[in-house]
Amino acid sequence: MERNQIRVGIIGCGAIGKEHMNRLTNIVPQTKVVGVYDYFKDVADEMAEKYDAQSFASGEELIQSDDIDAVLVTSTDDTHSGYVMDCLKKDKYVFCEKPLALTADECAKMVEKEVALGHRLIQVGFNRRFDNGYRGIKQAIENGEIGEPLMIHSAHRNISQALGFKTDYAITRVAIHEIDITRWLLAEEYDEVQVLKVKQSKRTNGDWLNPQLVMFKTRSGQIIDVEVQTDGAYAYDVQCQVVGEDGTLNLPDPASVVKRTKQSKHYQLGNDWATRFIDSYDTEFTEWANSISDGKLVGPSAWDGYAACVTSDALIKSRVTGVPEKVELITKPYLYK
Amino acid sequence: MERNQIRVGIIGCGAIGKEHMNRLTNIVPQTKVVGVYDYFKDVADEMAEKYDAQSFASGEELIQSDDIDAVLVTSTDDTHSGYVMDCLKKDKYVFCEKPLALTADECAKMVEKEVALGHRLIQVGFNRRFDNGYRGIKQAIENGEIGEPLMIHSAHRNISQALGFKTDYAITRVAIHEIDITRWLLAEEYDEVQVLKVKQSKRTNGDWLNPQLVMFKTRSGQIIDVEVQTDGAYAYDVQCQVVGEDGTLNLPDPASVVKRTKQSKHYQLGNDWATRFIDSYDTEFTEWANSISDGKLVGPSAWDGYAACVTSDALIKSRVTGVPEKVELITKPYLYK
Amino acid sequence: MERNQIRVGIIGCGAIGKEHMNRLTNIVPQTKVVGVYDYFKDVADEMAEKYDAQSFASGEELIQSDDIDAVLVTSTDDTHSGYVMDCLKKDKYVFCEKPLALTADECAKMVEKEVALGHRLIQVGFNRRFDNGYRGIKQAIENGEIGEPLMIHSAHRNISQALGFKTDYAITRVAIHEIDITRWLLAEEYDEVQVLKVKQSKRTNGDWLNPQLVMFKTRSGQIIDVEVQTDGAYAYDVQCQVVGEDGTLNLPDPASVVKRTKQSKHYQLGNDWATRFIDSYDTEFTEWANSISDGKLVGPSAWDGYAACVTSDALIKSRVTGVPEKVELITKPYLYK
Amino acid sequence: MERNQIRVGIIGCGAIGKEHMNRLTNIVPQTKVVGVYDYFKDVADEMAEKYDAQSFASGEELIQSDDIDAVLVTSTDDTHSGYVMDCLKKDKYVFCEKPLALTADECAKMVEKEVALGHRLIQVGFNRRFDNGYRGIKQAIENGEIGEPLMIHSAHRNISQALGFKTDYAITRVAIHEIDITRWLLAEEYDEVQVLKVKQSKRTNGDWLNPQLVMFKTRSGQIIDVEVQTDGAYAYDVQCQVVGEDGTLNLPDPASVVKRTKQSKHYQLGNDWATRFIDSYDTEFTEWANSISDGKLVGPSAWDGYAACVTSDALIKSRVTGVPEKVELITKPYLYK
Repeated sequence: MERNQIRVGIIGCGAIGKEHMNRLTNIVPQTKVVGVYDYFKDVADEMAEKYDAQSFASGEELIQSDDIDAVLVTSTDDTHSGYVMDCLKKDKYVFCEKPLALTADECAKMVEKEVALGHRLIQVGFNRRFDNGYRGIKQAIENGEIGEPLMIHSAHRNISQALGFKTDYAITRVAIHEIDITRWLLAEEYDEVQVLKVKQSKRTNGDWLNPQLVMFKTRSGQIIDVEVQTDGAYAYDVQCQVVGEDGTLNLPDPASVVKRTKQSKHYQLGNDWATRFIDSYDTEFTEWANSISDGKLVGPSAWDGYAACVTSDALIKSRVTGVPEKVELITKPYLYK
Repeated sequence: MERNQIRVGIIGCGAIGKEHMNRLTNIVPQTKVVGVYDYFKDVADEMAEKYDAQSFASGEELIQSDDIDAVLVTSTDDTHSGYVMDCLKKDKYVFCEKPLALTADECAKMVEKEVALGHRLIQVGFNRRFDNGYRGIKQAIENGEIGEPLMIHSAHRNISQALGFKTDYAITRVAIHEIDITRWLLAEEYDEVQVLKVKQSKRTNGDWLNPQLVMFKTRSGQIIDVEVQTDGAYAYDVQCQVVGEDGTLNLPDPASVVKRTKQSKHYQLGNDWATRFIDSYDTEFTEWANSISDGKLVGPSAWDGYAACVTSDALIKSRVTGVPEKVELITKPYLYK
Repeated sequence: MERNQIRVGIIGCGAIGKEHMNRLTNIVPQTKVVGVYDYFKDVADEMAEKYDAQSFASGEELIQSDDIDAVLVTSTDDTHSGYVMDCLKKDKYVFCEKPLALTADECAKMVEKEVALGHRLIQVGFNRRFDNGYRGIKQAIENGEIGEPLMIHSAHRNISQALGFKTDYAITRVAIHEIDITRWLLAEEYDEVQVLKVKQSKRTNGDWLNPQLVMFKTRSGQIIDVEVQTDGAYAYDVQCQVVGEDGTLNLPDPASVVKRTKQSKHYQLGNDWATRFIDSYDTEFTEWANSISDGKLVGPSAWDGYAACVTSDALIKSRVTGVPEKVELITKPYLYK
Repeated sequence: MERNQIRVGIIGCGAIGKEHMNRLTNIVPQTKVVGVYDYFKDVADEMAEKYDAQSFASGEELIQSDDIDAVLVTSTDDTHSGYVMDCLKKDKYVFCEKPLALTADECAKMVEKEVALGHRLIQVGFNRRFDNGYRGIKQAIENGEIGEPLMIHSAHRNISQALGFKTDYAITRVAIHEIDITRWLLAEEYDEVQVLKVKQSKRTNGDWLNPQLVMFKTRSGQIIDVEVQTDGAYAYDVQCQVVGEDGTLNLPDPASVVKRTKQSKHYQLGNDWATRFIDSYDTEFTEWANSISDGKLVGPSAWDGYAACVTSDALIKSRVTGVPEKVELITKPYLYK
């Protein structure tokens, strides 16, 4: 039997909001967009007309509407927390793009609220967990193909950043992906993390630090190094190698036509995350819709958003102190185990 | 504005029919399945119930229904021609899985009918044209990145075949993909084709010939060699290298996690076409739906189905005669240029 | 105990002769060059002085000298046969660069003479048999790692050719390597061979045919296709894939630094055979010297030179007749089994 | 003109000594072994007979002999320093396997002595500088192909270690290679270095720490991470990626036959350093011999041995203190610039 489509309301009609609107309408058959809100009303109205949806006067109103089964929050970072809490109060599913909140305390409150409700409502937009490459790595680890994982070497290289970029964003918007995907791959929490100062690139387009070398250490002693190039890199290139007792696993480069010309063999690389991980977004929302239909969320949780936030804070502190900083988490509630 | 969904009727609810039904329902948002027919009525009824569609008493009735915008023919090969002609008579879009017909004459009649109508209605299921790898090759050729193409080396290796497989199927069901994709990549028609006898594999599961080496020669003298392994191969593996004056282009192997264990570096390969080319099917039907909405088909045409059929016939003849056989086509109508 | 060095006399001090002179002097410790001859006496004298060797008045005189343990023939192709026969008469080891002779009949006479002597004296310069890549393939075949070999797909692409190049040389100087290496890999003789006409490249620097597609069929029915690009190619690139019942084996591209820049991943390719196969030459002469010390030649034999010559003749004939031509060999003497 | 062979005396006839004896005799034509000494006289006598060389009663006597042009020290680590100093006193070339001495002070004395003599006599056995892969990386850096180097990610993985291995050896015998090759690639000295504690492998065959994560920071701020697996690894595998402003450069895996079987594509990896870097050893000694003939050493110097020793000491200290330790070098004499 065909499932009923999830009626989604979107708060925030910027670039990423528009892209998800198209995705939920034209790519993911299990969802349809029925409501939109944006701080700029004309933008919301335009999207509402294009997608045959209702334009709401406020995010709060959208959240309260009985015509909305689930909310997608793609507004500015500082507003995430408020909208997500409103959804929790209404006992409504909410998909929130990262970061879940600006502070760990706000995340902790969401965790507390979900625990009080006794069920999960929040999913955080850590899309890499839905990428086939990372999933292949996780599967192989769980199959025991490389024995116990001991280390991860990774790199996250970008060509450019939008105006207004700042050094902290190298953690909160760039390395945030590695913060989450590594926890997920290893199924471990971090013990301490560190940012190491490294020689700077002249290709950086602003006054932020670039590159930075970021290190995580898990509670069992696994070490993860993450080379973060915020901009100026030769390509958008994401690398991940998990080193286990019996072998290693590498995230594959995307398949690309092999060209042999001018005395070289060439493989084209991508230029941005949207292309590199486009399949993961499609899968992310398809599985989100399916899990809502099943009545049980399984994607990245409020706890994952909380842990990422605490880790980001510790990294930003470490950059200032110059030494490793502890990642201090509250006790993990049973709901997230 | 959101496009109206195309209402599709499916004739033939076998394995491939069921797969496409799921695809048109749950993966491609621009289509919905509203009618089904199968030779075995209970199968059709079951699918009708599952997908909330109407079960028709006959394919003809389905084709006549005003509730059906477009027909998908996935019934047995011998019935393709009749259903497609019925669609043409009704002036209705029809997507027909390969082969378009059992004989070149039947294909020629469809071409004639479309030309009389003055517009295309038929799309043939040559899915590889929608694969990103092949598209990357075609793009690079058109960009002039390897100069004029001179040769193609290709291989089509399969692990197994269903019961009832016969030697001719190595052409009509296996090499048929290379017959089409090569014409498309080179934008040329064939002049002559040949099947070469080659040492046989003991891994073949029936009494058909395996492998066979198939050769095409285009009108401008380009030579294409196709190694065809119908079964017994180490993997489902499709290889294609276009050799141009200035370089070569290779179809990439699908991206897969790189595993280093036991003194080797390993990349997993696939085991069947469904997984290998799954993205191409999704794209194929998405673009088909979009082209119907646009009122102008652009995918593989009746002419492509006809040319493939004539080429298959010549190859099967060549296997018997042991020499190259001519590919004699009618004049290509303007409609297909 | 250290072996005595083999005292080598070199006939022919052109480019390849000079290179081997350096190799036998400075790279292979088991040999030393003690005599030289060249048609141009001043060239021979110069080399004699440089390498502290004797300059002979003629090749015949060099061959007769008791100070010469073994002869290396690197003179022009038309003189090979005479010098090799002289060595046989003197019962002296002779290494002859390919071709062993201009005609199959001359080769047959050498075979006859060696058989009469009851031992091998001739080694032919088929250097690829000493390349680690080809050896790895042969080893894997013999280990049964891909089951019974059924086909080989290969390519031999060159950037340029010296002045005076002719169409026949595409066989006698280029494809000659595939003629030999394929016989060796498969341990089979050819039944028939063919040259196929193919679309020509505008990058060719002379009036010879380029490219050509060359086909061999072994007595057991294995088919080998060889794409021959005599010049104008993107690199010096040699490809070989052996297709067996259970898998395939590919000649590796030479290891080269992987560079990621400008949105691509690049591997440099070589530009000529001298660099690509340089290790094979060193191994070839080292093993030749060792086999002489052991009193038993094991490298490419007069029989191999003969078979290559007969195959070349058949290919050149096939280019004219346009059909496959038989490779008719005399009975293989026990000496070469 | 052929160069006179360098007459080499070898002190230490263990495994590596024997291997080099064979190399200097049978692979490198510019050298011959004329004298040997070993702590176990019968071993030295045996080698002397095998290679037709003189067996000396002591290393000192060998060094003093006028029949010896250059000395190769392959004895136990604790004896290196004494033999090398003896060679310096005799003003004789000496090739010393790493480490040059057990303490930085001893190395500094050698540097002082060479400076007093006004010319270099010492070469240290850092063989990776002679590997084609590393040389390709250095060349590309110097060509500016990746802009300014900012970081290096590297790994040094071993399958096993000999009995008697200790934790410190992970630095002095394993990471020592990365200590040197990184200094050479970047043409920089280190500012500080650190050993990070990491989760341990159960595959380790002794009671030493394995793996360890080693970090170097150069004076210009470049950071190098080195994953050190002393044993238990899936292969002998050495990885090196230099990250520059404009791109990255990777040490290639050695070329190996590509095998496609059992639904995977496989590349074999090596099992020990001897095979992996065998070509580098041949080049190392060939170039050493040539530089002696030229009267000017150009390989790894006493200064390089000294810097490696100071770095090793700092790393071993860091493992104990748990924090980064400074690499304090004396002023680099002009002789080594």
